[in-house]
Amino acid sequence: MPVDAASLFKMAQKLRRHSLESTTAAGSGHPTTCMSSADIMSVLFFDEMNWDPRDPSGMAQDVFVLSKGHAAPILWAVLKEAGAIQEDLLTLRRFDSPLEGHPTPHSPWVRVATGSLGQGLCAAAGMAWARKRDATKGRVFCLLGDGEVAEGSVWEAAQFAAVNGLDRLVAIVDINRLGQSGPTMLQHDIGTYAARFRAFGWEAAEVDGHDIAALQKTFAAAQQAKGKPFAILAKTFKGRGVSFLEDKEGWHGRPVKKGDELQKAVAELGDTSIQLKVEPRRYADGPTRSIRQPKVEPKYTLGQEVATREAYGSALARLATDCMEVVAIDGDTKNSTFAEKFKDVAPDRFAEGYIAEQNMVGAALGMAYEGKIPFASTFACFMSRAYDFIRMAALSKPKHLVLCGSHAGVSIGEDGASQMALEDLAMMRAIIGATVLYPSDAVSTERLIETAARTPGIVYIRTSRPKTKVLYANDEYFPVGQSKTLRSSKADRITVVGAGVTVHEALAAHDILAKEAIPIRVIDLYSVKPIDVETLRLAASETGRIVSVEDHAVWGGIGEAVSAAVGGLAPVTIVGVHETPRSGTPSELMHANGLDAASIVATVRSLLK
Amino acid sequence: MPVDAASLFKMAQKLRRHSLESTTAAGSGHPTTCMSSADIMSVLFFDEMNWDPRDPSGMAQDVFVLSKGHAAPILWAVLKEAGAIQEDLLTLRRFDSPLEGHPTPHSPWVRVATGSLGQGLCAAAGMAWARKRDATKGRVFCLLGDGEVAEGSVWEAAQFAAVNGLDRLVAIVDINRLGQSGPTMLQHDIGTYAARFRAFGWEAAEVDGHDIAALQKTFAAAQQAKGKPFAILAKTFKGRGVSFLEDKEGWHGRPVKKGDELQKAVAELGDTSIQLKVEPRRYADGPTRSIRQPKVEPKYTLGQEVATREAYGSALARLATDCMEVVAIDGDTKNSTFAEKFKDVAPDRFAEGYIAEQNMVGAALGMAYEGKIPFASTFACFMSRAYDFIRMAALSKPKHLVLCGSHAGVSIGEDGASQMALEDLAMMRAIIGATVLYPSDAVSTERLIETAARTPGIVYIRTSRPKTKVLYANDEYFPVGQSKTLRSSKADRITVVGAGVTVHEALAAHDILAKEAIPIRVIDLYSVKPIDVETLRLAASETGRIVSVEDHAVWGGIGEAVSAAVGGLAPVTIVGVHETPRSGTPSELMHANGLDAASIVATVRSLLK
Repeated sequence: MPVDAASLFKMAQKLRRHSLESTTAAGSGHPTTCMSSADIMSVLFFDEMNWDPRDPSGMAQDVFVLSKGHAAPILWAVLKEAGAIQEDLLTLRRFDSPLEGHPTPHSPWVRVATGSLGQGLCAAAGMAWARKRDATKGRVFCLLGDGEVAEGSVWEAAQFAAVNGLDRLVAIVDINRLGQSGPTMLQHDIGTYAARFRAFGWEAAEVDGHDIAALQKTFAAAQQAKGKPFAILAKTFKGRGVSFLEDKEGWHGRPVKKGDELQKAVAELGDTSIQLKVEPRRYADGPTRSIRQPKVEPKYTLGQEVATREAYGSALARLATDCMEVVAIDGDTKNSTFAEKFKDVAPDRFAEGYIAEQNMVGAALGMAYEGKIPFASTFACFMSRAYDFIRMAALSKPKHLVLCGSHAGVSIGEDGASQMALEDLAMMRAIIGATVLYPSDAVSTERLIETAARTPGIVYIRTSRPKTKVLYANDEYFPVGQSKTLRSSKADRITVVGAGVTVHEALAAHDILAKEAIPIRVIDLYSVKPIDVETLRLAASETGRIVSVEDHAVWGGIGEAVSAAVGGLAPVTIVGVHETPRSGTPSELMHANGLDAASIVATVRSLLK
Repeated sequence: MPVDAASLFKMAQKLRRHSLESTTAAGSGHPTTCMSSADIMSVLFFDEMNWDPRDPSGMAQDVFVLSKGHAAPILWAVLKEAGAIQEDLLTLRRFDSPLEGHPTPHSPWVRVATGSLGQGLCAAAGMAWARKRDATKGRVFCLLGDGEVAEGSVWEAAQFAAVNGLDRLVAIVDINRLGQSGPTMLQHDIGTYAARFRAFGWEAAEVDGHDIAALQKTFAAAQQAKGKPFAILAKTFKGRGVSFLEDKEGWHGRPVKKGDELQKAVAELGDTSIQLKVEPRRYADGPTRSIRQPKVEPKYTLGQEVATREAYGSALARLATDCMEVVAIDGDTKNSTFAEKFKDVAPDRFAEGYIAEQNMVGAALGMAYEGKIPFASTFACFMSRAYDFIRMAALSKPKHLVLCGSHAGVSIGEDGASQMALEDLAMMRAIIGATVLYPSDAVSTERLIETAARTPGIVYIRTSRPKTKVLYANDEYFPVGQSKTLRSSKADRITVVGAGVTVHEALAAHDILAKEAIPIRVIDLYSVKPIDVETLRLAASETGRIVSVEDHAVWGGIGEAVSAAVGGLAPVTIVGVHETPRSGTPSELMHANGLDAASIVATVRSLLK
């Protein structure tokens, strides 16, 4: 039975009051953007959604994603009113409070951190995709602002949801006409928003976002959606309910003043004495979880030539067979990243992301919150497209999110610089908490894929296009944070640190120099982050000089990581890409950038002169 | 007078033949994606466009952007047939050839490098925006693939073009139904493509992309567009013209085999003996260029408190007054980045980018190719949204492109981690050829803005939210690649390297330690890249130890840059952000991350124990 509109309106007013009071207490924040969405939030949390304020897991319930993250104060307010959280709302934005300025998982009710706009719908779509796969009934509600709909990623999510028929997904756009620095592009042209969603394959309904009964009716219509996601385009006013705030410019990210101004605003909201109880409502079903650990069984022979990108596909397909949580998504590159091997064996757990990398990463993050172990893959250079999503995913602290970038570096050859990832190690290393792995052969790739599936948080795996020789026995293990010292003697005069393709060049250089009686140490730095400080410092002390060789730009990659790790123990000569590369054969490009065995030999010789 | 359809068809077949032959000679490449667009390319270059094959500047001409960069072979072919280039097409993808696998400015006919999909339309929109501002008549044609329309950035560009009424812009979508790894999302649903462009404010026309006369008619219709950009949705077939390639899966990025296979394919194309001449056609007008150098005149007093972000706005407004080439674009943050100060004085040279950072950077790049000096600004953390665009912009080698990221680091305070740029220095340093500047006060900001406007290529400027004291006299200069040693003595026992907000903390730490008779050197590393190796190495030698302090993650930022610069001369203690920050006051967060004066003092003391 629906809750009566008068009560829900009074609750909306109360949520407005909380939003005003908490931001004023904090001295910063976005009350007016909360106020435009107050009626929507009241209807959603106190009437429409089936949820249990005692259980933030979201299992067997409807879940909510606040894509317009700057409206965090009203999220905290509605959770408090529903009895889901106990914190004092007036601690908003304080260093000791989980009620942060934008939603983060410091509150268990936040599934994905938001605050970078246009990302929530991608995550919500990923959740809805996973729920459809699991055939669970819980729906996913996502509240967006109108300003953020200018982000292309919203349309990437929209098309992904439509092509996958995600009718468990409901997007509500709070169209309050005003952005941060002025009116939005479309202002109150609600029809154009609706036309866009319809053109992208959604059901769409326009509604007065301050009319409780109309909102209830529209949500009821959304329940009937079949085969299509549903968009609710709600016409609202920023600062709704307070005359000197409503529909006024200059009030974005600005609380009202303590004292008279706040009192006047609160007075205008009228009676806010209501209390409503959320009756816990859950769905009967829930996904069955497997208990088997992801596991690979590499079966290669030493010296066999296999591209690490191909080993990625083989390992992923192997994981698929007994770990039902593993899912994969790829950006129309599955025949190059070899994610297609996973699709071949587990088509129902593979999502085609098409050429839309932002949504690919965002949706994968959403899948993680449905208990999946998502692997998202594309060319490593195109991971840069999703960098803001990766950054935000790190704030979301997912249990698992594995990103695989293939075709790293100049060793891809003829396709040219646009297809060469030369910045990916720098960008992934900079992500707080991320693990960065870079295998050199098929065995280490497979082992690291298994490790990635078991490692908490974000794991990035960098694979290469060319075939490389198998260096390791099938039973070798590759713990995160360690390295492999492949050549070593007491007499080593220098240490060459490689990773991926350059490990093979370093080994070849070792053999050439050995004939000249110049012993060198060779380290395979497969774990780029965390880095094996101990082994590197030992090598620095024992050999007195380090040369790092990476198929990556010389800033922020392996060379600098090694340099920082060894501190002042030994000078580090950083060999890598300095100039924009061009088309050419892999060997021409490796040589031109000083990465091949002959160049390493020359570098070592010149350093020992 | 239009060229006859039969001749244009024969030329299209010849372009197909070139595409087949050159990719087969190269042993890699994408002939079939060239073949779907051959009729469009023939009509465009030999009939529709007003251009001069002797002049690649694009001035007073129509210009062309190949957004589907993997169709490079047909671009080279059409330029060769038109007499614009002289290179042997069979050198495609060779190390010594400008005819790269994807378009790059190694050919003067390429304005923007492409190959990362979904970017060309953003640049084209920027060009059209600049042309509208300059009231020049030349149009901008952009050829997209259908697969790339899945990129959200295409819709960011679409809305930007519509809201600015860019009727000089014509987008042609080559809808050949097949992506890299399978059919596209919409396959041949041409109507849905048209509906999407219309919903985004464009005129749209559907056409058979292999019907020369129909294409000519549609281009003629596009000439009549008034106030709206024009989209041509061309239904085509991948591999068109060769029976075993046409509309077949498995032929993306795959040339036909030498010998029989190539011969058979070429034979099916029929008579390709045509030669056509492009009659140079130019517009009478052209923009007037000012000759005045960008110039600032800082007028601050020492100790005055001014946020560097505010000084950015002041400097930009000053540049605007006598350098007419300076334009600015911002992502609905102009009141926070202070780009609004530029808008106030030069509204006609300010573009509102709304919340769409990919297009913001892409459009700015396009403006650069129309002789502008573009400044694009948003919160530094949201520059990560455009990282792939920045990467590709670097390959485009623009004369100028200045990016300003404000609100860097934990010092923003209460808004929380989603709004804090902690990875931007790593990501920008990794860009080959980029200059990275990080001013600490208002004077250095203004000077560095002037420098940025005069520095070739991509320049990134990082500004801060809090007010900081003016440290420098108004006539101080800040050359790229240098630093300022602010405190120094023969007795210095340690060097503290700061930048931006941490310079002020380092100075305060200096004063505290001075009272304890611990002299320290303090360096302001305003030029993060290129870095002042000489001064840092001198400091390392003279003081024996370095502490770097940065409001940024500890990977890929200032600490590692310093570490790499000083080599083994001295150990570097890298102080920066290690853990995900949270909401709090700036001073709480600076302290929690070891960045404030008290923490620096403690670090120095512990190192000297």
